[in-house]
Amino acid sequence: METKKIFLPESELPRYWYNILPDMPNPMEPPLHPGTGEPVGPADLEPLLPMSLIEQEVSQESEIAIPDGVLEKYLIWRPSPLYRAYSLEKALGTPAKIYFKNEGVSPAGSHKPNTAVPQAFYNKEAGTKQIYTETGAGQWGSALSYACALYGLPVQVFMVKVSFFQKPMRRVMMETWGGKCVPSPSTETQVGRNILEKDPDNLGSLGIAISEGVEKVVQDPDAKYCLGSALNHVLMHQTVIGLEAQKQLKIAGDYPDVVIGCSGGGSNFGGIMLPFARDKINGKDIDIIAVEPTSCPTMTRGPFTYDFADTAETTPLFPMHTTGHDFMPPGIHAGGLRYHGNAPINSQLLLDGIIRAEAISQLETFEAGVMFARCEGFITAPETNHALAQAIREAKKAKEEGKEKTILFNWSGHGLIDMNAYEAYNAGDLEDYSLSEEELTRALGRLEGLPKPKQYVPAK
Amino acid sequence: METKKIFLPESELPRYWYNILPDMPNPMEPPLHPGTGEPVGPADLEPLLPMSLIEQEVSQESEIAIPDGVLEKYLIWRPSPLYRAYSLEKALGTPAKIYFKNEGVSPAGSHKPNTAVPQAFYNKEAGTKQIYTETGAGQWGSALSYACALYGLPVQVFMVKVSFFQKPMRRVMMETWGGKCVPSPSTETQVGRNILEKDPDNLGSLGIAISEGVEKVVQDPDAKYCLGSALNHVLMHQTVIGLEAQKQLKIAGDYPDVVIGCSGGGSNFGGIMLPFARDKINGKDIDIIAVEPTSCPTMTRGPFTYDFADTAETTPLFPMHTTGHDFMPPGIHAGGLRYHGNAPINSQLLLDGIIRAEAISQLETFEAGVMFARCEGFITAPETNHALAQAIREAKKAKEEGKEKTILFNWSGHGLIDMNAYEAYNAGDLEDYSLSEEELTRALGRLEGLPKPKQYVPAK
Repeated sequence: METKKIFLPESELPRYWYNILPDMPNPMEPPLHPGTGEPVGPADLEPLLPMSLIEQEVSQESEIAIPDGVLEKYLIWRPSPLYRAYSLEKALGTPAKIYFKNEGVSPAGSHKPNTAVPQAFYNKEAGTKQIYTETGAGQWGSALSYACALYGLPVQVFMVKVSFFQKPMRRVMMETWGGKCVPSPSTETQVGRNILEKDPDNLGSLGIAISEGVEKVVQDPDAKYCLGSALNHVLMHQTVIGLEAQKQLKIAGDYPDVVIGCSGGGSNFGGIMLPFARDKINGKDIDIIAVEPTSCPTMTRGPFTYDFADTAETTPLFPMHTTGHDFMPPGIHAGGLRYHGNAPINSQLLLDGIIRAEAISQLETFEAGVMFARCEGFITAPETNHALAQAIREAKKAKEEGKEKTILFNWSGHGLIDMNAYEAYNAGDLEDYSLSEEELTRALGRLEGLPKPKQYVPAK
Repeated sequence: METKKIFLPESELPRYWYNILPDMPNPMEPPLHPGTGEPVGPADLEPLLPMSLIEQEVSQESEIAIPDGVLEKYLIWRPSPLYRAYSLEKALGTPAKIYFKNEGVSPAGSHKPNTAVPQAFYNKEAGTKQIYTETGAGQWGSALSYACALYGLPVQVFMVKVSFFQKPMRRVMMETWGGKCVPSPSTETQVGRNILEKDPDNLGSLGIAISEGVEKVVQDPDAKYCLGSALNHVLMHQTVIGLEAQKQLKIAGDYPDVVIGCSGGGSNFGGIMLPFARDKINGKDIDIIAVEPTSCPTMTRGPFTYDFADTAETTPLFPMHTTGHDFMPPGIHAGGLRYHGNAPINSQLLLDGIIRAEAISQLETFEAGVMFARCEGFITAPETNHALAQAIREAKKAKEEGKEKTILFNWSGHGLIDMNAYEAYNAGDLEDYSLSEEELTRALGRLEGLPKPKQYVPAK
């Protein structure tokens, strides 16, 4: 019988995270203070993050040791299995080998705990008494509630109001782990009260939720903020995915020609690909692909420029690919990919030709998800269906070209809490969205007047 | 770092199922034909099951080889990991070691695919063209839809109407795997039409759903029926759980003093404990405990007698512990434990003192589930919370007695599709149910006039 899953023994769990900063082919331009336009320094971040995480954010060490207190909790689900998708290969009639890394085995069902757990750990160590965060569809809020439960740390999640009511089960997960979840905009903050006064029916946005959390943190010296994606230290924590995959592929006697991840803020994509990007920088020939929805084409069509991480313009300005911080993407089911910005690290690697990006429309991703469910069994998260759809495209190309090829993609989460999306697809009620040029131009209007990086690239 | 999860390599996946029938301390009394009162023979079952499964149902071989076509699919999630619950032990301050077998890693999220896959395989091999089954809360229907997808076999599931509307996500899972799911009673069968004519708002029951599926099968010579629990061959397929656990505990250098499973029809309990029951029959000292809800106390209070497997009295009569085939248990959230009967094998082993049974009330089980989620991370299915609650009771007892003890329980599934139950618990809206003597006596009234087995035991 052929090996289906490659497990690493627990003793082979990586003991360090990989930090690509010192290995970047070109240095990244710094985040800027929104008021002064000056580069942001560690001191500017101190009200929000514990010093240990600020140090990781700017570290020039390529390997950062994972503390024992994190390793112990990682063992609840890590090392995660690497699967060979034999049935999918057979159904496609492809000569390609398809591997996927199963991050759905975590208690929260996605890759998010890879960074939620260390963030909770470092905060606990630093004496933080209360954590605040935002969440959109609820994946991040539930992962962080889980992580905070493991260390006995109180957490409050501002959840975008429309999702709070549409996805009650995510809220219940947070509460079961002891987290507090409130719909945003809320009456708990000045920013929330101001918005509700003008617009009592406001449905909320990630931007507003971030502003609410930040307001709470700034008022409480014992409180800190946790972020689920985009920042350097978040991507670094996620590299445990790619580091494990490298060990597992070595056991299988293989090495990938193609590495694929779906990309919203970019943390799961960064997590699987950064250790391979290191190899590419050192001369390996690998095609590394970020996959985003055609409805939120940050990397494929957005400019590379300075932009805010939030709608309310309270964060530093980051050098990144963006569709504009005021952009409201269509209501696709892949909620985790509906973010206007992209991780600065990934954005820079795209400029440098280390990675490339593809956009796929909603229907093709669900077609891929249903095919996968019937071949390989697992039901895939709507976000992850984007990576899967690209893997299928690559496998079909290999078939057309009659070429052997090894494809690795990150199966970043299961879709068991997102079955309403499959319900819509099965009923033929899902729509394809592709952003018009006019919509993109309008969204980018909010970037006028903001500083431009040296490597500025206009929108496509 | 201490080992958290014990994995078996795929090469160590058991190659046979364990059949306890030849090793039973006392022979089981035969099922009876409802019309003639005579023992049921293989020929009576031929319209419903393929001959390969009928042979397994009555086999006297103690080891039955798992076919390659099943092993290949088992590898999608098997061998499943055995976990040591260090954090739970620490939170309880117990000297006991607590192990749990994680059956939630299957694509359907529970142990059910362990038998769904071989049942689909044998039917495919026998040339069956269409599968029918019933489902209550939807666990079995979704597992069977998954299994049928793997072999390209059409399946139709009659789902109890009240659950069909209350748990739409389970239906969507079935549909995503290509299964057809209809609410029962339906207009597709005579029995359904008769019921709807008298009572258009009938909410359905497992008994009615079984009757509908059986009617369809009897009318179509190319169709067969699949059963999710209780029968001998179903329990046998599930023994892959216990066989793996034995190998894993050997790696850990341990052996359990206590083995625990929750029990409705009895398949996950049988699956984990039957290989240990063999050891007990051969002289080992093990406490083997089935855990049921106080609201459906089949083994703890029901008589051991002949009873129908369905409400509509269409199946053979089985010798088993039962609360009566007309019994309508309260609407607890552990839908999989709301069955009036218990597997004949488990019922006989209870009579013989090889196993014992405990009943636990709903609130205690959810209290255990929330504690577990905050220690070990995983959110547990409401059914499985019964096993977990008993494991906690045993660990507390070990603490009181100051005794070391090794506890193994079957973590038969995750609760991610059952978050509404946790929502009710978190909100303080869950009720405890305990069956009154009057209710039990009324339910048992339907047994009057049915034959009694030689080993008849009255209700408690």
